[in-house]
Amino acid sequence: MPRLVTLTTDFGAGSAYAAAVKGALLAVNPEAALVDLSHHIPPQDLHYTAFFLRACVPYFPPATLHVVVVDPGVGSERAILYVELAEQQLLVPDNGCWTALVEAMGPPRRVLRLTESRFWRPQVSNTFHGRDIFAPVAGHLSRDIDPALLGVPTDTWVNLALPQPHISEIVLEGEVIFIDDFGNLLTNIPAGAFQRFQERGMRVWVGGAEIAWWVRTYAEAVPGTAVALISSSDTLEIAVCQGHAARHFQACVKTSVRVELAG
Amino acid sequence: MPRLVTLTTDFGAGSAYAAAVKGALLAVNPEAALVDLSHHIPPQDLHYTAFFLRACVPYFPPATLHVVVVDPGVGSERAILYVELAEQQLLVPDNGCWTALVEAMGPPRRVLRLTESRFWRPQVSNTFHGRDIFAPVAGHLSRDIDPALLGVPTDTWVNLALPQPHISEIVLEGEVIFIDDFGNLLTNIPAGAFQRFQERGMRVWVGGAEIAWWVRTYAEAVPGTAVALISSSDTLEIAVCQGHAARHFQACVKTSVRVELAG
Amino acid sequence: MPRLVTLTTDFGAGSAYAAAVKGALLAVNPEAALVDLSHHIPPQDLHYTAFFLRACVPYFPPATLHVVVVDPGVGSERAILYVELAEQQLLVPDNGCWTALVEAMGPPRRVLRLTESRFWRPQVSNTFHGRDIFAPVAGHLSRDIDPALLGVPTDTWVNLALPQPHISEIVLEGEVIFIDDFGNLLTNIPAGAFQRFQERGMRVWVGGAEIAWWVRTYAEAVPGTAVALISSSDTLEIAVCQGHAARHFQACVKTSVRVELAG
Repeated sequence: MPRLVTLTTDFGAGSAYAAAVKGALLAVNPEAALVDLSHHIPPQDLHYTAFFLRACVPYFPPATLHVVVVDPGVGSERAILYVELAEQQLLVPDNGCWTALVEAMGPPRRVLRLTESRFWRPQVSNTFHGRDIFAPVAGHLSRDIDPALLGVPTDTWVNLALPQPHISEIVLEGEVIFIDDFGNLLTNIPAGAFQRFQERGMRVWVGGAEIAWWVRTYAEAVPGTAVALISSSDTLEIAVCQGHAARHFQACVKTSVRVELAG
Repeated sequence: MPRLVTLTTDFGAGSAYAAAVKGALLAVNPEAALVDLSHHIPPQDLHYTAFFLRACVPYFPPATLHVVVVDPGVGSERAILYVELAEQQLLVPDNGCWTALVEAMGPPRRVLRLTESRFWRPQVSNTFHGRDIFAPVAGHLSRDIDPALLGVPTDTWVNLALPQPHISEIVLEGEVIFIDDFGNLLTNIPAGAFQRFQERGMRVWVGGAEIAWWVRTYAEAVPGTAVALISSSDTLEIAVCQGHAARHFQACVKTSVRVELAG
Repeated sequence: MPRLVTLTTDFGAGSAYAAAVKGALLAVNPEAALVDLSHHIPPQDLHYTAFFLRACVPYFPPATLHVVVVDPGVGSERAILYVELAEQQLLVPDNGCWTALVEAMGPPRRVLRLTESRFWRPQVSNTFHGRDIFAPVAGHLSRDIDPALLGVPTDTWVNLALPQPHISEIVLEGEVIFIDDFGNLLTNIPAGAFQRFQERGMRVWVGGAEIAWWVRTYAEAVPGTAVALISSSDTLEIAVCQGHAARHFQACVKTSVRVELAG
């Protein structure tokens, strides 16, 4: 069975860089089954990458290799890591883009720093490790090379601190952490906390604007209504039914979101 | 031979939602051969989806499974349908997005409403049936499960009414139904009717502007000239040679198009 | 082993045209391994296509077939070519989009003009040869048909003249030929010439603005600094560290770039 290899980059749609990564990977293993996840990560945005990976990596089958090239430190001394997490594998820059996965999938079973340049392209450019290191190493991994050959074990790496919600008995304070293509606002307030408030009566604000309704699903609300609901990532989400919540509330990533017990 | 499974969604380019659908599908069948058709359907636009599918589905080989997640009714009581049409298979929300295919490919040979939740993800969210129902069911179908296990036969479904042209002996009245990335205007006036007029001499208007030339192909016209021609979908098309007809005519979907017998 | 077939078009992201090309290709060979390179080539931009192909085609494994549909002359008398270049294969309109590859990969070993319509779709539209000729021919080639059956050998074709830098002992004059999604400016000044100047002391201008620093890699500079460096395509590149050089310098393709020996 060909090995699944996913690609996540900030190279931009239809970028020649993404195309070159595919070429250099397939040059090592023409039978790798490539799956584009995204080449639209906002340039060098590690928080976005963290959210993105958490929203999709856990759904893939065991033994999938996820190659992530969002790499503001390319060419510097930052390491490149091979990570085994649950049953999956990652090839990532050591910049913390992957560490939010640990919450959902448990601690890594193995982390290596790549050191063995014999698995890289013969000439490594200073600005394009995606093509010259990530791609050929991914090609070798997808051919079931023993990962131990690639580098040295490590137990230290960069952890990315994500914004944490403030949760008390009477108030939940969080923020927008992601805006999807429909304009829906995904927050960092966990579904469980929200549901406890919702059962007892609550009020919800985005920035300074109050949300009057909560629903189970978009289709329950009158078109144009702003609603709170549980997102598919199990967090509080703010949407405008058949509308665009981000424009409606002039909200962006980091806009504050607040839930209070009513009365 | 691995089974071809195409994906058409309105999730947006590089969306984590499209990535999660791929993961959940491959989790059921890691050997499915995924083909991205589009993740750029304008949000919840069923008319666009209808045109899109009609322009590409008929060209695929037999036994291709087309998964379409353009689903404003997600989480409501709308059904999800499995459809066999000519030699192809569809997995679609019951919102009419697929019914324009019947004109080109004949009536469906079989339509089922999905009911058997044992083929879905164990937890089904209220807002993301693409990941939790469509994807795993597509995975099972691509492993050649008997479709009859998935649900119950039905002979009623939502039909989408597309705008119809008015065709008489002396005038053809239609409208722009699609604008491609080159800015060309595709109309709902069939090639056959247009050609009968063209043989006898005609005048063509888009909105209030008259088109002076008709051609067989873009390359026949002087750059910058507005022309009428037969589109690759066998309908009347308005183009500006090496230019952008939509901007030139300030035209959009629903702009009227009129053909009159001359003299 | 399934044959790799890459797709490069100017149809636009998520275009129904790209989807139809995939369908018509897979209809001939459902086992072809499709790889999307780009559907975002700016409409009909042959210079961009030339740069794009040079940045990725050389990295692919032998026996990859590259299908390129950037075709302003569709429907005219322009030929469609099958080309063998180094160990790779191309299917291209005869408009010069591929000839810049010769510099990097050597002269073509074989060039044919497609003439045998029995390998095309039965009905060939005047505006969509991508679907009606390129796709089915690519399907047949990926099934290892003898290419000689497709057409007739030719030793003449359109060559695309790319802007050449002016190189002397004391000055290098070139221009921006590509802007990537990070806003970095890629020029046509070769790395070798630049490095000779750099060793002896130099000054660098983009348009009227001087670049004060040169670096080995993005990460060496202070964020916000404009720098000159060697690109991953082995040419002079102008970047703004963690910024957007194109916006910073209001530069576009064709903006002049000048390197002078200092003192």
